[in-house]
Amino acid sequence: MKLITSKDNPLYKELKQLAASSQARRRAGQTLLDGVHLAQAWLQHRGAPQLCVVAESAQRHPEVAPILAECERSRTQCLVLSDNLYGAVSQVENGVGLLLLVATPNPKEPQVLEKSAVLLDGLQDPGNLGSVLRSAAAAGIGQIFCTAGTAAAWSPKVLRAGMGAHFVLDIYESADLERLCAGSRIPVLATSSHAAQTIYQCDLAGEVAWLFGHEGQGVSPHLMEMASQEVVIPHLGEMESLNVAAAAAVCFFEQVRQRTAGD
Amino acid sequence: MKLITSKDNPLYKELKQLAASSQARRRAGQTLLDGVHLAQAWLQHRGAPQLCVVAESAQRHPEVAPILAECERSRTQCLVLSDNLYGAVSQVENGVGLLLLVATPNPKEPQVLEKSAVLLDGLQDPGNLGSVLRSAAAAGIGQIFCTAGTAAAWSPKVLRAGMGAHFVLDIYESADLERLCAGSRIPVLATSSHAAQTIYQCDLAGEVAWLFGHEGQGVSPHLMEMASQEVVIPHLGEMESLNVAAAAAVCFFEQVRQRTAGD
Repeated sequence: MKLITSKDNPLYKELKQLAASSQARRRAGQTLLDGVHLAQAWLQHRGAPQLCVVAESAQRHPEVAPILAECERSRTQCLVLSDNLYGAVSQVENGVGLLLLVATPNPKEPQVLEKSAVLLDGLQDPGNLGSVLRSAAAAGIGQIFCTAGTAAAWSPKVLRAGMGAHFVLDIYESADLERLCAGSRIPVLATSSHAAQTIYQCDLAGEVAWLFGHEGQGVSPHLMEMASQEVVIPHLGEMESLNVAAAAAVCFFEQVRQRTAGD
Repeated sequence: MKLITSKDNPLYKELKQLAASSQARRRAGQTLLDGVHLAQAWLQHRGAPQLCVVAESAQRHPEVAPILAECERSRTQCLVLSDNLYGAVSQVENGVGLLLLVATPNPKEPQVLEKSAVLLDGLQDPGNLGSVLRSAAAAGIGQIFCTAGTAAAWSPKVLRAGMGAHFVLDIYESADLERLCAGSRIPVLATSSHAAQTIYQCDLAGEVAWLFGHEGQGVSPHLMEMASQEVVIPHLGEMESLNVAAAAAVCFFEQVRQRTAGD
């Protein structure tokens, strides 16, 4: 494996830019998967990466060795960076020192909503977005549509919070939610504290699309009007609203409960 | 109201230290509530703060004026800081420029678990902790017990994520979860992907205590053994685990569903 020790190495400079700038990642159509867990999940679900990068001190780490072997089998180029160079491309503190460079998946957007999906209108917080993706993947929801105003799904922070959920989902960024809602073949449900029907009264055994919005402002009013139905998560305490990722989990798993009832 | 423009003012120096250091907050038994939303929630649920601090430019802001009026009614001391001084004590970017200094609530810890509660063993992420508190408050769960290894509940980040949930809860920090589990009068439930019984099969209509752990390592093994029962959140997708705050929300609201069924 090639060892890079100079910060003037062109490939190293490219990695550093991808690590630092979401614009650079978008332009290149590439992203970095930082850490052993994401690397394992990528190899399991998506196969070979474009490049495998390991810190010099991590080469013989028991979790890193099998990943390097896997990359060798798939003839993936592997690079070793001296530890101080590696530190500047990784955002994981106290991590094991391995990352993959991959082509950001860019699946062809379906014309029509007909399978259970999540529609995100301007969700801002990377931790919330990663948590929503993780919950959706665990609930068996396969499609995620994000407006252009939503946080970048393939950024390092969202990838970390998603814990590999990205790789089992089809994520459509800059999606036109108005068009999708207008032509949807399945109910589009949005949560609202003013709704009359609860998620527990709502029939969720079929396919539905869940619409969630910005942490502070919620779903934009014009999109809210296009939802088929507003539903409420009943509460018993004095707080009336949940964190958006918590609300999404409650909705997705009420759907799981209804779908598995009687199993 | 007194205007402070010198960074050498002793009260200002004290505020700056409280803002910067969790150790200083613990030593003083005080914390800062940053922003209009938290201030309104405190006034509503807990009454007068110890001190109200406002940025010079925010004094006439429409959301700040009623809070200042309320503080005047309760004879709470109010301070005005020049904007550059205020910037150094506030962690809220683009906020309105108001914060309250309050005595950190320190309720007397109950000897025995007998009401629905959340037990947190080493939860690390402030956003997750805030979200758990918010979900618990919305689900009507009133008591939160945190081990010493759990993130500090009254830190600015957790307060921000909690959105006021702190003020309707009794939060016990540095709690002895072993003692509480051992003497509990109600079932202590812990989630586990290996459990046989699902949360949907479990009777949650009565009082229960929910036990959650560290984001990576989960609940410590010795505490896990003290849980009355392990339960699983069934999943339908390829991801097997949820973010801990998402899992907590799913559990708390399954309890709400069972408690309100038939309403």
